[in-house]
Amino acid sequence: MNILIKNGIILPMNAPKGEQPYFCGCLGVENNKIAFVSSSSQEADKFLALHKDDCTVIDAAGKVVMPGLINTHTHVAMALLRGISDDVPLMEWLQEHIWPIEGKMGYQEVFDGARLGILEMLMGGTTTFVDMYPYEEAVAHAADLAGIRAVVSPCPMDFRMEHFETDWRKVNEFIPQSQVVTMMMGPHAIYTLSDKNLERSISLSHELGVGSHVHLAETETEDRDARAKYGMSPTEYFQKAGLFGTHTLAAHCVMVDDRDIEILAANKVSVAHNPQSNMKLASGIAPVKKMLDAGVNVSLGTDGASSNNDLDMWEEMRTASLLQKVATMNPCAIPAYTALEMATVNGAKAIGREGELGILTPGAFADIILVDLEKAHLYPHTNIISELVYSAHAQDVETVIVNGRIVVENRKCLTMNAQEVCSTAQKHIDELLNK
Amino acid sequence: MNILIKNGIILPMNAPKGEQPYFCGCLGVENNKIAFVSSSSQEADKFLALHKDDCTVIDAAGKVVMPGLINTHTHVAMALLRGISDDVPLMEWLQEHIWPIEGKMGYQEVFDGARLGILEMLMGGTTTFVDMYPYEEAVAHAADLAGIRAVVSPCPMDFRMEHFETDWRKVNEFIPQSQVVTMMMGPHAIYTLSDKNLERSISLSHELGVGSHVHLAETETEDRDARAKYGMSPTEYFQKAGLFGTHTLAAHCVMVDDRDIEILAANKVSVAHNPQSNMKLASGIAPVKKMLDAGVNVSLGTDGASSNNDLDMWEEMRTASLLQKVATMNPCAIPAYTALEMATVNGAKAIGREGELGILTPGAFADIILVDLEKAHLYPHTNIISELVYSAHAQDVETVIVNGRIVVENRKCLTMNAQEVCSTAQKHIDELLNK
Repeated sequence: MNILIKNGIILPMNAPKGEQPYFCGCLGVENNKIAFVSSSSQEADKFLALHKDDCTVIDAAGKVVMPGLINTHTHVAMALLRGISDDVPLMEWLQEHIWPIEGKMGYQEVFDGARLGILEMLMGGTTTFVDMYPYEEAVAHAADLAGIRAVVSPCPMDFRMEHFETDWRKVNEFIPQSQVVTMMMGPHAIYTLSDKNLERSISLSHELGVGSHVHLAETETEDRDARAKYGMSPTEYFQKAGLFGTHTLAAHCVMVDDRDIEILAANKVSVAHNPQSNMKLASGIAPVKKMLDAGVNVSLGTDGASSNNDLDMWEEMRTASLLQKVATMNPCAIPAYTALEMATVNGAKAIGREGELGILTPGAFADIILVDLEKAHLYPHTNIISELVYSAHAQDVETVIVNGRIVVENRKCLTMNAQEVCSTAQKHIDELLNK
Repeated sequence: MNILIKNGIILPMNAPKGEQPYFCGCLGVENNKIAFVSSSSQEADKFLALHKDDCTVIDAAGKVVMPGLINTHTHVAMALLRGISDDVPLMEWLQEHIWPIEGKMGYQEVFDGARLGILEMLMGGTTTFVDMYPYEEAVAHAADLAGIRAVVSPCPMDFRMEHFETDWRKVNEFIPQSQVVTMMMGPHAIYTLSDKNLERSISLSHELGVGSHVHLAETETEDRDARAKYGMSPTEYFQKAGLFGTHTLAAHCVMVDDRDIEILAANKVSVAHNPQSNMKLASGIAPVKKMLDAGVNVSLGTDGASSNNDLDMWEEMRTASLLQKVATMNPCAIPAYTALEMATVNGAKAIGREGELGILTPGAFADIILVDLEKAHLYPHTNIISELVYSAHAQDVETVIVNGRIVVENRKCLTMNAQEVCSTAQKHIDELLNK
C-alpha cells in the first residue's frame, strides 16, 4: 500500500543545527518505507500520478507530521498491574504487591497485559517499544498482531533460567515471521544475575548477533551493594564482564558518577532515561545533561505502567526536560528539541537502527504520526517544537502509521478492539487479585 | 435549572481518613448548588419526581463525578504568549521576550488571551482560577462570559500604580453583576513594591474585605536580595508589614526555610505550589511535604502558560506528587489522594471558600466535572484515585459544570466558540510579534 500525506507541518528530525526544523510539505510512503519528503506540492502530484490506483491520501492540514516515538524501556505487560499499588516504599511495593501477582502471571496474562499497554502506546503515538519481561514470546505475538514495532528482550534471571532458555528460543523462532518484532538479550540486572548467567546472556548476544538491554544503576542500594560485593560500581562490573562488547542499552543510570559516564561514552552504551518512574519510586535524578554533554546517547522510556503509571512518551519528554532544568538549576538544560531527539533519533540509535527509524527521510521505515494542533492548549502557534514538548498530550495524536500500515486513524485503533482489550485486562486483574 | 447525575463513581473529596473516598451513586443540582449526594438510586428517583419538568439528566456510567479543579495561581492572559520564548535564562526570558510584548498588551489583548486560557482550563476540568495581571477588568469580563469561576487580583506594582487604581475600581464595580467573579488584592512581590504601595494594597484589602494574592519566595535571587535590603526573608518582611493580617494566598514559596514555614503556618497563609513552572524556570523545588507536615494549607497552580506551557491541573497534581517523592527520596510523599486534595479542597481553602467549593456536598456550589475512565491508559480499574492522579489527562474530562451551568458537554465548550477564540489569539500574537 502507498500513502500520501499532504499539507502537513513536516518535522523530519534531521534538520542541521540552527535551522528551523520543520516546514510545510508532503511525504510519500511506498509499501513500508518513506519514498520522499518534500516542501513542494509538485512532488505530491508526481507521487499521486505514479500510484493513482493504490494510494491513500491523508490531508494533514493543521497537523504535525513527525516520526513515531520510541519507548526504549518498558515492561509492557505490567499495564495489567497499573494502580494495584502506589505510594509505598520500594521493597513493600515489590515484595508485597507486584511480585506475588507477577508469580501468578503466565503466557495469557502477559499477552493480554501487553495488548493493553500496546493499545495505550499506539493511541499516544509510540510506534516502537523496547520490552523486558518473562514470556517475551507473548509480547512478541501481541506486538505483531497489533502492528507495533517491538524489540523484545527475553530476560535471564538466576531464579528462572529455565524459563529464559525456553523463552528466547521461542522468540527467536517467531522473529522471521514478523515484520515488526526483533530481539535483544535482556540480562536483568547486576543483583539478579550470577557471573555465569550473565556470561550466558553475553555469549547468546554474540551468537545471535543481537544487542543487550539491561537495568543499570537504578538505585542507591544497587550501587552500594555492588561496591560492597565486587569492589566496583555496577557500570564497571558490566564493563569488566564484557557486556559492553555487545550493543548495549542500559535503562535508568540514575546512580552513575563521572567515571561511569566515561565508561558509558567510551563503550557507546545507550542510556534509556525513565524520569517519571525514577521520580515515582524515589530512585533519584539521572545526570542526563552530564551524560549528553559527555557524548552518551540518551533516549527515553516509560518503564512499566505500575511505576509511572502510564506509557506516555509525551509526558516523559516534558518531564525529562523540566526535571533536568530544576536539578541543574539551569533553565536552558534539555531544550525542547533535545527532548524530541531523545524520543526519536536517539531511541533509534539506542536499538542500533539509526537512520532507519525515528526520522522522516527517504528509505527510512514508515513509522509516522500526525499530531493535531487545532486545540486550545496548543494555541497560539509561535513555536511548534515548544508546543509539542511542553504542551502536547498523547491524546493529540490523531493518526499513527507503523511500517507503512495505518494502525490508528482519527483516534481509532484499527488493529485492536479497544473495548475488548480493556475488558479482558480487567477480567485478568480481577482474577489475579481474587476479586 | 436542575441537573441529575446518575450511575457515576462519586468522589466528593470529604471522606474520613482511611475510608474509601468514592462510591457508586448519584448527585442532584438545584439552580447553582448541590442538593444531594447519595449512593441510593431512590434519592435520584425522588429528585427527578420533584423536578420532572425542569431537569437535565446526565448518565455518568463509567465516569468519575468529582469537584472541579481549582487553579490557585495563574496569569491567564499569558496563554497568548505560550511558546514565544523557552529554554532561556530567566532574566533574558523576562527582559528580552516577555516584558516587551506585555508592554504592548492592552484591554483587548488581555481579554482575548484570557479567553484562550479559560477555554483551555474549562476543557481540562478547571472550574475556578485565581489570576493576577494588569487589566484584571478584562479577565473578569472574559471569565464571566465563559462561565468559569474566577478570583481576579488587580496588581499594584510601583511602575503602574495609576493603572492599578483604575483597574481595581473597575473590577470592584463589576463584581456585583457577576455570579462567578470575585476579587483579591494582588500585591505583586517584594521586589516590585515599595513599602508605601504594599501598605496601600493591605489597607485596600481591609477596606474591601478581600484577601491578598502575592508572589513569595519564588527564587534564590528574591531571597538573597530581601536579606541584603531588609535583613530578613521575604516571608518575614511581609509578616512585619502586616500583609498576613489579610487572608493571604502566597504563590511559589520555593525558597522558604523552617522559620518561614512556621510563620506561614502560624498566620494561616495558604501556599499555591506551581511545580511545572518552578521546574521550567529552574527556580527550585518547594518543600511541599515539609509545609503540609507543618500544617500549611498547600494548593496547586499552573502559573502562566508561558512558563509551563499549559494550564493543566492534572499535570500539576501528577508533577507535585512525583517531584516531592524524588526530592525527599521518599516514595510515600504526597500520595495520590493528597494531590487531589491540593487541587480541590485545599484550593477552596486558599481562597477562603472552604466547604463551598472543591467538594461535593449538599449546599456547596455546583462546580462539578465528569472524567471518562473508558480509555486504555486508565485501565484496568483497581484504584480510581491513583488512575486520576498518575494516569488521567485534561482530555479525559468530558463534562464540566460551573455554578450549576453546563459549560462543557461531551468535550464541547458550550459557552465559547473554540475556533474563534483560538484564531483571535493567533491574530493578536502575530500582530504583537509584528509578523
